[in-house]
Amino acid sequence: MRAYNFCAGPAALPTAVLEKAQQEMLDWQGKGLSIMEMSHRSNDYVAVAEKAEADLRKLMNIPENYKVLFLQGGASLQFSAIPLNLLGKNNKADYIHTGIWSEKALKEAKRYGDINIVEAGTMIDGKHAITEQSTWNLSNDAAYVHYADNETIGGLQFASVPDVAAPLVCDYSSSILSAPVDVNKFGLIYAGAQKNIGPAGLTIVIIREDLLDQAKPEIPSILKYADQAKNGSMVNTPATYAWYLSGLVFEWLLEQGGVDAIYKMNQAKAKLLYGYIDSSDFYNNPIAVPNRSMMNVPFTLADEALEKTFLKEAEQNHLLNLAGHRSVGGMRASIYNAVPLEGVQALVNFMDEFAKRHG
Amino acid sequence: MRAYNFCAGPAALPTAVLEKAQQEMLDWQGKGLSIMEMSHRSNDYVAVAEKAEADLRKLMNIPENYKVLFLQGGASLQFSAIPLNLLGKNNKADYIHTGIWSEKALKEAKRYGDINIVEAGTMIDGKHAITEQSTWNLSNDAAYVHYADNETIGGLQFASVPDVAAPLVCDYSSSILSAPVDVNKFGLIYAGAQKNIGPAGLTIVIIREDLLDQAKPEIPSILKYADQAKNGSMVNTPATYAWYLSGLVFEWLLEQGGVDAIYKMNQAKAKLLYGYIDSSDFYNNPIAVPNRSMMNVPFTLADEALEKTFLKEAEQNHLLNLAGHRSVGGMRASIYNAVPLEGVQALVNFMDEFAKRHG
Repeated sequence: MRAYNFCAGPAALPTAVLEKAQQEMLDWQGKGLSIMEMSHRSNDYVAVAEKAEADLRKLMNIPENYKVLFLQGGASLQFSAIPLNLLGKNNKADYIHTGIWSEKALKEAKRYGDINIVEAGTMIDGKHAITEQSTWNLSNDAAYVHYADNETIGGLQFASVPDVAAPLVCDYSSSILSAPVDVNKFGLIYAGAQKNIGPAGLTIVIIREDLLDQAKPEIPSILKYADQAKNGSMVNTPATYAWYLSGLVFEWLLEQGGVDAIYKMNQAKAKLLYGYIDSSDFYNNPIAVPNRSMMNVPFTLADEALEKTFLKEAEQNHLLNLAGHRSVGGMRASIYNAVPLEGVQALVNFMDEFAKRHG
Repeated sequence: MRAYNFCAGPAALPTAVLEKAQQEMLDWQGKGLSIMEMSHRSNDYVAVAEKAEADLRKLMNIPENYKVLFLQGGASLQFSAIPLNLLGKNNKADYIHTGIWSEKALKEAKRYGDINIVEAGTMIDGKHAITEQSTWNLSNDAAYVHYADNETIGGLQFASVPDVAAPLVCDYSSSILSAPVDVNKFGLIYAGAQKNIGPAGLTIVIIREDLLDQAKPEIPSILKYADQAKNGSMVNTPATYAWYLSGLVFEWLLEQGGVDAIYKMNQAKAKLLYGYIDSSDFYNNPIAVPNRSMMNVPFTLADEALEKTFLKEAEQNHLLNLAGHRSVGGMRASIYNAVPLEGVQALVNFMDEFAKRHG
């Protein structure tokens, strides 16, 4: 029996995708071998890889002057690859700091260039929030402005895309494909696959072509965006099975009606869970309403001592992985695309029943 | 029906491993979710990861003063990571050049330090071979000596481990776990998973502890061996599913009787295929006997014009991926651990039948 899985990442995948992968595991489309046993340069595999890219382009409406790269190393390797590729001659960038992941990105960037840190976290009525863009001290000569759309650990998300002069670079790891986004507003979008795309081990980079070819001399060769773009992300062997699985997720998303349809579903899921939390004296979410994450919902119990009991009983009810990140504690329900509305309803039902017994 | 798959990589995996993965795909050990949907920091996943490492240590008899890392980016990212981690203050290393892969490694290393290239390729009676170590001009002050045990494209393999003063660093991508190796002779062994270990997207690094902590300042943080060793290869999210599948391959190898047993099988497979080629006037292998690869067997047909027919008919006989690398042409049969003796026998039968019709 499949449980409801609220893991922050590696995260739930659509059951239909896993079923298809299971069915094709030993013999892909009657070819006598698994897709993971195929050369990445074979006609069959290249067709799978290209279809995945085409479907992602369709889902996100990616303009033709952007390249889509399927890389390895996670968003964390991009924390290095981005400054190494984009800092350019001026060697300056702005980094917006809103939580743990944007901090990791800026710490790594500081090793390579002159980084202007914009502290954009604030408190409004005791709740975490992101400051107004008008208060940010942005540089005049930054090669790019970096931010993380959604802080997976904090559960803090930008209400809108910042409007800046320099190319905008965004870590979309935990919110990509959850809502429509205008790619034209960005110089570069990147995302580790293991939330809304596929299994861990794949990283998507969407980059505007004019930014491709300005890497620093010390960059490891396979991190060069220009080379990967020229070689269809196959400068070396890519993570072929993860790429294939991501393609299945893209197909599933198109079958659901694309990003607009999944966005409506995600809004309904978030409304249900936040609505319940707000209606309860037993649970609390620490984020100001405009900056609440649609994907990661942290919450605390009125009595911290009940946390272990909550997690244990949730698991008995087939509601898995609700512990908050080890760095912050509390609870967190990650309600990515693959978590169905029924899963969120089951969680709310359990939370309500638990509160009534312990409240 | 499963065909015999002679792909050089991503390569054949044991059918029993794929069957187990297939069975566990949607619900790992009754936990209600796939192993690829689990946090890498969950107790269940960490146990899987640690067992994989323990099994690899058992298979290779890895001493306690070596760390085993499960990384991303392929051997190609290690081409950068190795000089960035190991060149040290002297900034010098020796690279033994025997073919396309060792050349890629040395080209990347030259971007970071003072590299002494030892040209070790030669011809003996019209066949490719590796020169005697006594002829090599090694440096006195190299931080390490790098070589590739087995040139996957050329089909050229070292007959024994070089005996050098500096720490020995070896690309074992296409020969790891195919034959016993004394890890004590090495400072560092690395291998992309996609030949004898598991799916593409995972890279194994086995490193002696005293070499860990000497990285250059410009190294991307997640490439630092010392940090990855301290954090159990989880500085960031690893390629969890590839790591799990590799663990299944290690279990399978132990069930086969370990590396000694698979080595005997590999010797039998190589003897069968090379023996047939040598007995034939129709086929030719371009490598001198002592340096023939046990894993990758390149061969040509007496009449080049028959290559397409050969490949087409082989495929009709469920013998897949026998084309040589696009850079060299001809044929190549990769007979990794997962290719059974019956597969090699079926190939030899087909080759013989083909030669009789066309010879």
